[in-house]
Amino acid sequence: MPDHFQLLKTDTGTAARRGRLRTLHGVIETPIFMPVGTQGTVKSLTPAHLREIGAQVILGNTYHLNLRPSSELIAELGGLHKFMGWDGPILTDSGGFQVFSLAKLRDIREDGVAFSSHLDGAKLFLGPKEVMAIQRNLGSDIAMVIDECPPWPCERDACAQAVARSYRWAKQCRELAVESGFLGAGHHVFAIVQGSTFDDLRREAAESLAALDFPGYAVGGVSVGEPEPEMLKQVAATTPFMPADKPRYAMGLGTPPQLLKMIALGVDMFDCVLPSRVARNGLVFTPDGPINLKNEKHRNDPGPIVEGLDNYTCRNFSRAYLRHLIAAGEMLAATLCTIHNLHFYLDLMAQARAHLEAGDFATWHRAWVERYEIGAAARVA
Amino acid sequence: MPDHFQLLKTDTGTAARRGRLRTLHGVIETPIFMPVGTQGTVKSLTPAHLREIGAQVILGNTYHLNLRPSSELIAELGGLHKFMGWDGPILTDSGGFQVFSLAKLRDIREDGVAFSSHLDGAKLFLGPKEVMAIQRNLGSDIAMVIDECPPWPCERDACAQAVARSYRWAKQCRELAVESGFLGAGHHVFAIVQGSTFDDLRREAAESLAALDFPGYAVGGVSVGEPEPEMLKQVAATTPFMPADKPRYAMGLGTPPQLLKMIALGVDMFDCVLPSRVARNGLVFTPDGPINLKNEKHRNDPGPIVEGLDNYTCRNFSRAYLRHLIAAGEMLAATLCTIHNLHFYLDLMAQARAHLEAGDFATWHRAWVERYEIGAAARVA
Repeated sequence: MPDHFQLLKTDTGTAARRGRLRTLHGVIETPIFMPVGTQGTVKSLTPAHLREIGAQVILGNTYHLNLRPSSELIAELGGLHKFMGWDGPILTDSGGFQVFSLAKLRDIREDGVAFSSHLDGAKLFLGPKEVMAIQRNLGSDIAMVIDECPPWPCERDACAQAVARSYRWAKQCRELAVESGFLGAGHHVFAIVQGSTFDDLRREAAESLAALDFPGYAVGGVSVGEPEPEMLKQVAATTPFMPADKPRYAMGLGTPPQLLKMIALGVDMFDCVLPSRVARNGLVFTPDGPINLKNEKHRNDPGPIVEGLDNYTCRNFSRAYLRHLIAAGEMLAATLCTIHNLHFYLDLMAQARAHLEAGDFATWHRAWVERYEIGAAARVA
Repeated sequence: MPDHFQLLKTDTGTAARRGRLRTLHGVIETPIFMPVGTQGTVKSLTPAHLREIGAQVILGNTYHLNLRPSSELIAELGGLHKFMGWDGPILTDSGGFQVFSLAKLRDIREDGVAFSSHLDGAKLFLGPKEVMAIQRNLGSDIAMVIDECPPWPCERDACAQAVARSYRWAKQCRELAVESGFLGAGHHVFAIVQGSTFDDLRREAAESLAALDFPGYAVGGVSVGEPEPEMLKQVAATTPFMPADKPRYAMGLGTPPQLLKMIALGVDMFDCVLPSRVARNGLVFTPDGPINLKNEKHRNDPGPIVEGLDNYTCRNFSRAYLRHLIAAGEMLAATLCTIHNLHFYLDLMAQARAHLEAGDFATWHRAWVERYEIGAAARVA
């Protein structure tokens, strides 16, 4: 798929970009946030809810889906889109991150990683060959290469080895995607830039992977426990060396202000379980920071989470009602709070795109972040 | 509200009726099934889902809502309709049934029942005065009187006392509804006919309550553990003595065939937690009886729960996908199975109304019940 990514505009005040990514299941306007559908569902939402809140692309987890119900079964049933009733674009991770974070008894070899399932202990193996076959079975619009994600913090030597291995695996993944016709059919494969906190390793990784001409590139190895300044520093050390004409994806991040800060660093795509996970615990986002609906002060609050925000939850329900649902242990609380939080993220991305188009992204995003962080600080204090 | 109930047609082959009940929040076409929204939500569904599946009226539980968040808070927030975002009719039970089944340390007095909350043990009291005040706070379209529901089986003397007390309480509830302007404003109050297995007590209860001219009447004291033949016998012993020009409601019932059998006995309205409760456990209804989606045979089944049934779940998802969601512990399983089961019930009522209008209800309902029961028996065997 030549010209699959159009860089519509680059901001003058920051490194932010306004782009458009074409996939087999539709166009994605960037910057964009991707709701996470780990097990073939964005937890507690129907695909109709996802459409309503403006989701353009969602994420599926290769590791989880391959353990249960298996990628072969999903292929037999027509692929992941049909299986889960979502006909928009789907990005799947390679499963590598979960192998390094969830699975047990890892044995890293040149052809992949041997590990035990976190569900039943079954011995499994994921390497370039396996992750590309699985993502082909799933029918991913955007498949990710398998990589070795070093922990934070890590030693330079171990990191250099992980970067080198990730490069070899990425190269194999790309070759397999060409041989199988996956790339030729219009699916995308994104490479992942590792390098931990070592700026030179990140640059080396980004440049060597850029030479392989992937349809897109991700910043990996962030969101692994490092503090925010460190995370932003790593992203800033990576994006300048990623190809300008390809979409850039920061994996597993972040809070609303972090997303804006990373857009300003030139990132186009994000995914994160944060908004959906905290929603299930009654924590919801507002332009003045997150609020906890369990708080007694919302007991008789007739107002919505965010006045005027155009989503099903804010249009129809009071904070008092949501607090009641949470107190009563009702599942609907999770659904309504997830609708709000994901819409809040998607709406923030829509605002960012509009301000990029209008040319005032730099000032707008600084003001947005300031208001949010002041509100959040006041609430904690 | 004079002429609030129109009896559009009475079946010739059975005692079934096609009717229309007007309420402050809209018209209810009968026979009808009412999804149960115990704590201010039909579990796992949004009000938009309820509209989509054709719900005309839902039920709220006075006992639960008054314990949490309290009827005063709901009144302060504009009433139950606004609180839960449902602008259609709402029927509320009086809470009496829950006091007799859920609460502890009951002390039945002439002015009501003293009991302890099942949530925190708080000492509470519900009598005619309290239940009418609570239902006024909630803004119920159809309020129920408080009654004494005898257990099954019970002694004749105890039952006669319960019938007598229920009559006195019903009379007081009606008087309070007149004095407070509740009835005059167009809200309805339904009386409840008790009498357990004693046909003469049921007749006496029905006739004495009929003389009080309530806007509607319910068969109570069923669905308390008795076998189906006993349940149907009690309904059959009650409906002939209920006013023909008022809606009739069988409380807390039942399976799909039971609903059709009770329609044939002249019942117009039903509520039951069965379809939503079993949905959360993966049991879903089909015209050939219920099926358990957890069953291994649905592992790779690409078909919907019911081919051609026009609800969101059957239009979009395979049995294999639903089974996967259940196996993975995903909340969406509850939502999608509940959508299906409640729609199945509502669609069955729509079919019953259509066949009553067409004049072939008797033969249709016998054939429907036969197919369902043969299918269910074959699956168990």
